[in-house]
Amino acid sequence: MEVKSYRKDLFYSYSLGAFPTIELLKNHPEAVIKVIIHSSFTNQEVINLIRTLTDKEVIINDKLINKLSPKENCYVVGIFNKYQTTLDSNIDHLVLVNPMNMGNFGTIVRTALGFSFTSIAVIKPAIDIFDPKVIRSSMGSIFSMNIVYYDSLESYFSHFKDHKMISFMLQAKKTLQETKFKDEMVSLVFGNESSGLPIDCLNDDSIIIKHSQNIDSLNLPISVGIALFEIAKQKQN
Amino acid sequence: MEVKSYRKDLFYSYSLGAFPTIELLKNHPEAVIKVIIHSSFTNQEVINLIRTLTDKEVIINDKLINKLSPKENCYVVGIFNKYQTTLDSNIDHLVLVNPMNMGNFGTIVRTALGFSFTSIAVIKPAIDIFDPKVIRSSMGSIFSMNIVYYDSLESYFSHFKDHKMISFMLQAKKTLQETKFKDEMVSLVFGNESSGLPIDCLNDDSIIIKHSQNIDSLNLPISVGIALFEIAKQKQN
Repeated sequence: MEVKSYRKDLFYSYSLGAFPTIELLKNHPEAVIKVIIHSSFTNQEVINLIRTLTDKEVIINDKLINKLSPKENCYVVGIFNKYQTTLDSNIDHLVLVNPMNMGNFGTIVRTALGFSFTSIAVIKPAIDIFDPKVIRSSMGSIFSMNIVYYDSLESYFSHFKDHKMISFMLQAKKTLQETKFKDEMVSLVFGNESSGLPIDCLNDDSIIIKHSQNIDSLNLPISVGIALFEIAKQKQN
Repeated sequence: MEVKSYRKDLFYSYSLGAFPTIELLKNHPEAVIKVIIHSSFTNQEVINLIRTLTDKEVIINDKLINKLSPKENCYVVGIFNKYQTTLDSNIDHLVLVNPMNMGNFGTIVRTALGFSFTSIAVIKPAIDIFDPKVIRSSMGSIFSMNIVYYDSLESYFSHFKDHKMISFMLQAKKTLQETKFKDEMVSLVFGNESSGLPIDCLNDDSIIIKHSQNIDSLNLPISVGIALFEIAKQKQN
């Protein structure tokens, strides 16, 4: 198998770096095709851990690593088949409408996992969750996250009728600071980095994270991080 | 005056884009040297606003704009003398120890302004706050922020003896989720993106933002955003 530089239409992708690759091996061992190690990588403890976590090929191939990671020093690469996950219908969801920035998306996945949110719906068009840049910016946490694409918010909610939509919008009247979350299941819906959510998502349950008038808005990963922190805090109390 | 591509040792810097430039003109009119507009920029409302906000030269110079912003479409540039600000000793401070990522720093400045924190101490070595990339990632909010460099945390605290240090550290025992902030003045201290704070910053007031064991840590701008949100919320209640 000749491994090509990443394209969205390939059936496989790769994790760049030892830490994300170990997350891949731990969480999706069945998807792994092979692991490539750079000849100058000498951390025997990590190499042993990799061999313990997979029975697939572990090979040394400097040329291939340099091809897949031309810009950065990278010593371990995991090649894997793209896989599918499902959302758990019994827990709260994060719903991202048209996320377009790969770095932001990776940061959001890492933050969501940090507050034990493990199901994310992504409304298309959107970034490619298997792009190596997304994997890297998620620090490998993408491999612990269940993520499913939907064509529209309507399509998503048709599958999760018991989830209450809470849309985060600058036009909302209720603030996160004053909201008490009950024990019902919620879908926390955030819009695109630049354009936010369409105005028809606005309803009495919509929430704004109150901020000073000196800025137009908080950025998307910060908003998501604050919301997940607050909800996780309340629901655990 | 020949305007050079940005270097840290220049006495001037520039804001790229109409929005950051307007923030510059509003907040530091005395520092402005001149404003450059691209000949294809035809938003007369913005041009009029710029002329209202400054009595300095406003000129058209496509070649200079392309030199200063080679990679991105940019139609308005503000050239300004680097200026100094001071920290307000009667309010809470954000203290960033060795911040090294310009995008993160800009995001933090924007978030801090969003929660009405207007004084940031930066402990060197650190990014250059006047780098055009910092200005851009702050969306111009850097021009509303008071930022002062210090050589060490000791040097900073020698100037602000009435501020209580609250260090954010993974080793802390107290969680942000359970902390009640009193009416005393605080300095919220965050470490470098990769290495965090030195262990001698750990004390009984140190705080960790509790997160799941599935991630190593939250990233720096997310941690700062959550902390500022929580403290602003409590102090306003």
